[in-house]
Amino acid sequence: MKEVALGIDIGGTNTVFGFIDKEGKCLLTGSIPTQKHHDINDYLDELFKHVEKEIENSLEELDIVGIGIGAPNACYYTGTIEDAANLRWKGRIPFVSLVKKRLDVPVYITNDANAAAMGEKVFGAARNMNNFLVITLGTGLGSGIFVNGDILHGHDGFAGEVGHMIVRKSGRECGCGRKGCLETYVSATGVKRSVYKLLARHTGDSELRDIPFNNLTAKMVAEAANRGDEVAKETFTYTATILGEVLANVVAVTSPEAIFLFGGLTKAGDILFKPVEETLEEQLLAIYKGKIKVMPSGIKDNAAVLGAAALIWNKK
Amino acid sequence: MKEVALGIDIGGTNTVFGFIDKEGKCLLTGSIPTQKHHDINDYLDELFKHVEKEIENSLEELDIVGIGIGAPNACYYTGTIEDAANLRWKGRIPFVSLVKKRLDVPVYITNDANAAAMGEKVFGAARNMNNFLVITLGTGLGSGIFVNGDILHGHDGFAGEVGHMIVRKSGRECGCGRKGCLETYVSATGVKRSVYKLLARHTGDSELRDIPFNNLTAKMVAEAANRGDEVAKETFTYTATILGEVLANVVAVTSPEAIFLFGGLTKAGDILFKPVEETLEEQLLAIYKGKIKVMPSGIKDNAAVLGAAALIWNKK
Repeated sequence: MKEVALGIDIGGTNTVFGFIDKEGKCLLTGSIPTQKHHDINDYLDELFKHVEKEIENSLEELDIVGIGIGAPNACYYTGTIEDAANLRWKGRIPFVSLVKKRLDVPVYITNDANAAAMGEKVFGAARNMNNFLVITLGTGLGSGIFVNGDILHGHDGFAGEVGHMIVRKSGRECGCGRKGCLETYVSATGVKRSVYKLLARHTGDSELRDIPFNNLTAKMVAEAANRGDEVAKETFTYTATILGEVLANVVAVTSPEAIFLFGGLTKAGDILFKPVEETLEEQLLAIYKGKIKVMPSGIKDNAAVLGAAALIWNKK
Repeated sequence: MKEVALGIDIGGTNTVFGFIDKEGKCLLTGSIPTQKHHDINDYLDELFKHVEKEIENSLEELDIVGIGIGAPNACYYTGTIEDAANLRWKGRIPFVSLVKKRLDVPVYITNDANAAAMGEKVFGAARNMNNFLVITLGTGLGSGIFVNGDILHGHDGFAGEVGHMIVRKSGRECGCGRKGCLETYVSATGVKRSVYKLLARHTGDSELRDIPFNNLTAKMVAEAANRGDEVAKETFTYTATILGEVLANVVAVTSPEAIFLFGGLTKAGDILFKPVEETLEEQLLAIYKGKIKVMPSGIKDNAAVLGAAALIWNKK
């Protein structure tokens, strides 16, 4: 019998699962579309049908020691998902207890950025760290914060919303209903918005002038920047500078050993990391200068599923 | 024998000490001027001479179970005080080991705001809380942050510098050498600076127009505000609004149950607390709205010494 944790990552588009052993090896994976079922029970029935099929097909006999779940708006304390903007199930979904009805093992849920931070701690580059931040740069900006060797959940389980720190008064409209939140500037969506702001401001040529807003992706902007497109380059500098400024403020609260940048946008590489590091270092209070590492994630593949499974292996 | 902890609060002007029993009762206190001795050993000799005299004069026999110290720029991990701007001893002072040479009991040091937070947890209004903030409003702005039931020291022991979050780009000059730090706006000194900014901007009468900058105190401003002086009232609204805005961002990082405002400036009462609460509530991300209490400290007397002693009683 091979002991594995079942890691489940619930994204706005797909739900990906995988069986992860104690060393962080991913034995089997599968996925289903997240949005197919309006009813949470239909969704879980389909998910567990796929999970069971993978177990049956496995060459080794699997012993599932627990289930870890990363999901938007998930609360670690209550085991619920609450009014996630990108999911179809509204209200307060008792996700953990619904999962336990299907497989009675230890089940933990937390938001996707906290799961990423736990993955970094258990399987990644933060194994020897007790105080660090993970910033996930996707459609939005998530954050997972480790302090004193554990995730900072806060009083209500919803700590770590760095993406919703207000960084520009009366700034860009945010999906949360407020204005000027960090994620409206620093995220894949933020990058797109900044391209259009800069195209409006400048007169110079840019290959991005031929692409309509709805077709543009952050990946295209990164590629254009690496080809030397001035607007694309300035977009990344602008994005990274705002991130560096805000991280200097977050350091003044939490004093981490390292800050990990995680997610699709980090594939941009140096054009993102360098100005983040430079701005951070320049803006830091003297006592923190030269102490904070800015690093890419130490997990290469299946990071989201590994992070979810790490919620279980962290307890073993 | 009565078990007591010796609490020591090292301020820029005076060093105050007290013997605190397990229930938080302060049995005896004393103080010496902090700046009299250039040599740290001369300072400690005088301090312990006074401590011993108090012990001898005590009616009850005292058993000192430990020494807790609150001091600017103190590091909990290393037991040192490092380049505190308001103290005469420069460089890295191994304070804990110097104290242990004089009295070999458990000795802990942390910065004054962390000590205030520990006092709130052990003896004050946060006894049943595991996640809360203490904001100390004095000459500067300090912060002590409790998460998962313990002080957030961070990787290097210097977490909780909320006073040095940059809140206005290219804003007011700060003693730290940077610009726009929160404490240049929200502190006794910040209040004075804001009075002068508003006197420059407006033309209306104000009793504060007769007071030179160097004679003005935050207490005078609070008193003028409570007498109805418009500039003084607007100063407190301005100060409290900035604090409320920044606290909304700190909540997005740490998600506390309550925020305690502590220190001289809080004597201003409602003219400070009300606009802080209103701005915070207005600026919070929806998931935090209606959840965060803004409260005065639950400790009435000898708060700094009680906080320092709480570093010991917290471990018993």
